[in-house]
Amino acid sequence: MSYTSLKSLASKYTFQPATKLLAKDLNPHAINAKYAVRGPIPTKAEELRAKLAGESHSLPFNKIINANIGNPQQLDQKPLTFYRQVLAILQYPELIYNPALVQTIPKDLIERAKLLLGKIGSVGAYSHSQGIPYVREQVAKFIQKRDGYESDANEIFLTSGASTAVSYLVSILGLGQQTGFLIPIPQYPLYTATLTLNNSKALPYYLKEEEDWSIDSSSLRTIIENAIAEGTIPRCLVIINPGNPTGAILKPDAIANLLALAAEYGLVVIADEVYQENVFKGEFVSVKKILRELQEGDDQGRFSNVQLASLHSTSKGISGECGQRGGYMELVGFHDEVIQQLLKLASISLCPVVTGQALVELMINPPKKGQESYEQFKYESQAIFDSLEQRAASLYAAFNEMTGVSCQEPEGAMYCFPNLTIPQKAVDQAEKSGLEPDEFYCSELLDNTGICAVPGSGFGQVPGSWHVRTTFLAPGTEWIDQWKEFHEMFMKKYA
Amino acid sequence: MSYTSLKSLASKYTFQPATKLLAKDLNPHAINAKYAVRGPIPTKAEELRAKLAGESHSLPFNKIINANIGNPQQLDQKPLTFYRQVLAILQYPELIYNPALVQTIPKDLIERAKLLLGKIGSVGAYSHSQGIPYVREQVAKFIQKRDGYESDANEIFLTSGASTAVSYLVSILGLGQQTGFLIPIPQYPLYTATLTLNNSKALPYYLKEEEDWSIDSSSLRTIIENAIAEGTIPRCLVIINPGNPTGAILKPDAIANLLALAAEYGLVVIADEVYQENVFKGEFVSVKKILRELQEGDDQGRFSNVQLASLHSTSKGISGECGQRGGYMELVGFHDEVIQQLLKLASISLCPVVTGQALVELMINPPKKGQESYEQFKYESQAIFDSLEQRAASLYAAFNEMTGVSCQEPEGAMYCFPNLTIPQKAVDQAEKSGLEPDEFYCSELLDNTGICAVPGSGFGQVPGSWHVRTTFLAPGTEWIDQWKEFHEMFMKKYA
Repeated sequence: MSYTSLKSLASKYTFQPATKLLAKDLNPHAINAKYAVRGPIPTKAEELRAKLAGESHSLPFNKIINANIGNPQQLDQKPLTFYRQVLAILQYPELIYNPALVQTIPKDLIERAKLLLGKIGSVGAYSHSQGIPYVREQVAKFIQKRDGYESDANEIFLTSGASTAVSYLVSILGLGQQTGFLIPIPQYPLYTATLTLNNSKALPYYLKEEEDWSIDSSSLRTIIENAIAEGTIPRCLVIINPGNPTGAILKPDAIANLLALAAEYGLVVIADEVYQENVFKGEFVSVKKILRELQEGDDQGRFSNVQLASLHSTSKGISGECGQRGGYMELVGFHDEVIQQLLKLASISLCPVVTGQALVELMINPPKKGQESYEQFKYESQAIFDSLEQRAASLYAAFNEMTGVSCQEPEGAMYCFPNLTIPQKAVDQAEKSGLEPDEFYCSELLDNTGICAVPGSGFGQVPGSWHVRTTFLAPGTEWIDQWKEFHEMFMKKYA
Repeated sequence: MSYTSLKSLASKYTFQPATKLLAKDLNPHAINAKYAVRGPIPTKAEELRAKLAGESHSLPFNKIINANIGNPQQLDQKPLTFYRQVLAILQYPELIYNPALVQTIPKDLIERAKLLLGKIGSVGAYSHSQGIPYVREQVAKFIQKRDGYESDANEIFLTSGASTAVSYLVSILGLGQQTGFLIPIPQYPLYTATLTLNNSKALPYYLKEEEDWSIDSSSLRTIIENAIAEGTIPRCLVIINPGNPTGAILKPDAIANLLALAAEYGLVVIADEVYQENVFKGEFVSVKKILRELQEGDDQGRFSNVQLASLHSTSKGISGECGQRGGYMELVGFHDEVIQQLLKLASISLCPVVTGQALVELMINPPKKGQESYEQFKYESQAIFDSLEQRAASLYAAFNEMTGVSCQEPEGAMYCFPNLTIPQKAVDQAEKSGLEPDEFYCSELLDNTGICAVPGSGFGQVPGSWHVRTTFLAPGTEWIDQWKEFHEMFMKKYA
């Protein structure tokens, strides 16, 4: 049929057309899901960035400082050379046969790339939906070395970052509003968004800010018992350690108490441990290790049924390879029936991106001392770590110098979550603008300095308290000074 | 707290532990979702592959032929050099400064890589959740050139393959069992799986096998009217063109009739057009182009409210880069409120893998005649196309020579979906084994030849008819001869 006849066909129809869909016609669970990290403030920042790029502008700053999202390489963090050289070879294996190039690349790196090529084949082929078996075996070895306890490659899933893992877990564990997920408040809003989307119930538990954002397990028990009394089945307990947005590291005994609750109430534990490499103070101990310790010390088998899913990612840590979408999930103590269901869900999405899977292997098996690539790797990763640590300290100091601001010392992760005393006049002004007070503060901060941070209301906070989340990724300290200056101006203006 | 004290802590708890979760405790929608392409037959094939790799085996074949999934590079299809050289540079931009390497790489390719690096920055940074603006602009230009009608970069979403797009669309459009999605039968089981997972209702419409798997729009109207009479809101119409698993290409007037139904009943059209490059007979015309023709020819505005989401992918076509997870979705005619909701969903997953986004740009902007990289690109892509076309023809001929088998001529995509007459004795034997007859046939085929194909029941078929889906990706023709031999043996055995 030619196109002329198609056009003439159009006039032969006689039906009355229907209207277009509006938001009100869509799935209300999807509509109600919120994700502040890329919400209204970051969207406004993008608009301002476009203005800055225009021919002339009257803004009081010359660039946007993206402190809203843990996206290190957007903020000029250089990728680790070792990772990228291997990934380049995986994309184009013929590089290995270019003698001039090979001379410039460490031997152990070429060997690693050859090994991965042998195990993976083409990165353009779908892999096993659970992930490349060799990479899963390596992840199991890494976990075993980290914790001192065995890990099984059959219980490891490679994922596209940690978000996919959360989505699969909520999909199988949530049965509508009758199933509850205990989530920390403040939390990384992926959790509330995914729960809302899946029509599962969030059971928020507050972290104790004044005690380094620690967890009071007795208040958790009350929340669980109340939920049960109201007919909700508590199904899952989310632990984020090191904390996002809090930057806090949980103590082993606090985690042990959470595991006891999980064992008693049959809660699946989701341990979001994507910041395990970002530790500046104290020590990261995995939930898996604490579980195994408890199981060893427990002659009654009380901890033997605990089901734990631990998440890790190539996006954070020293790698900061967010755009490469690599990650893994270790399942501990799940019945095989449940693992098979997760595998089926993974198979519907076919497989995680294969280069991201390879990057997981590189992250967990960095070059070893004595290998040719070691020195440069060590130098680059130490520089990244040091600069994160320094900026964390600078920000912490700056916040505690600001009028009416208190901030817990960041122990890990990439964030500070300072507590703001917002003057009543500013609260009134926010109300007039239809904004939460902390949203108003972030909006003013953005308008005056170009700094984009996320209001605490996007993460949850004790009612009546106000916070802001900022990453400590942006280079330099000039922006921290600008923030201080803005803050005092804000406090004076609304005093 | 030291670990010794953790162990001693364990014995202080006194609670009674809960039991582990079983499949029966999980979300029934997740449990009920099925995905045959990676279902029981492919799983058995993996087990046999492991046996083959063992020291000795008594299997009547020496390798597994994966004809179950469109995964070209698993079956030794070479990636296109142009794509991989650019991607290698994006991973490790310093390659550009290696003079010995640069000499071996076409100038236009280096320029392309530099252009993309300028537009993208590091592939390790999260991009805009909707996808890199530059790549979206290029996609819009590609569509405009393909169809002769404008396309808007703001209405294009880059995705992780086409599966993510389907998942987002079903998430926002499905409101439980009261909303119905018209899907072709047979269909690519991603659709039924995603609908089941989201508790939305599938409204199956049968393709007419005897008429080249065409669509009878009057029977579609009956299905729609019946659904409405039963209280279901028909919400969406899925069109797969070229067809998977059918290998058929729809005629423009058939698509026009479907668009008229969409306009009349307010159905969102999902056009799965991932095989648009795989066309061996006839012509691919996009649903978007036909819609625009109808809109031009229609002075009553009957087609002005049609909402269309068209999907494309880097996994199929000549690229075959499945593991790289690239794709796009073009939204046509949607209200901005709906687009904003899709953007929010995309933002919860942060962003599609950035190298996959770059690959989309490479796929839609291949080297041009006169550019240094053109000849090799042309040679490689023509070779891939020709070998697919030849194997399609061989398979088609082979099936039609087999006793009791009929097969429509494959016009596009990567699949044949022959119709099998299965002898009653085999049907009885299948029943004894608890299998569908076509599943039994595929199981026997696998056991006897190592060929892994997927039973038609995984895609849907007219009740009482039996089919099998095979890709025509596996190299050589020896396996086709083995299949013929097996088939005649099977027919004799159960005659």
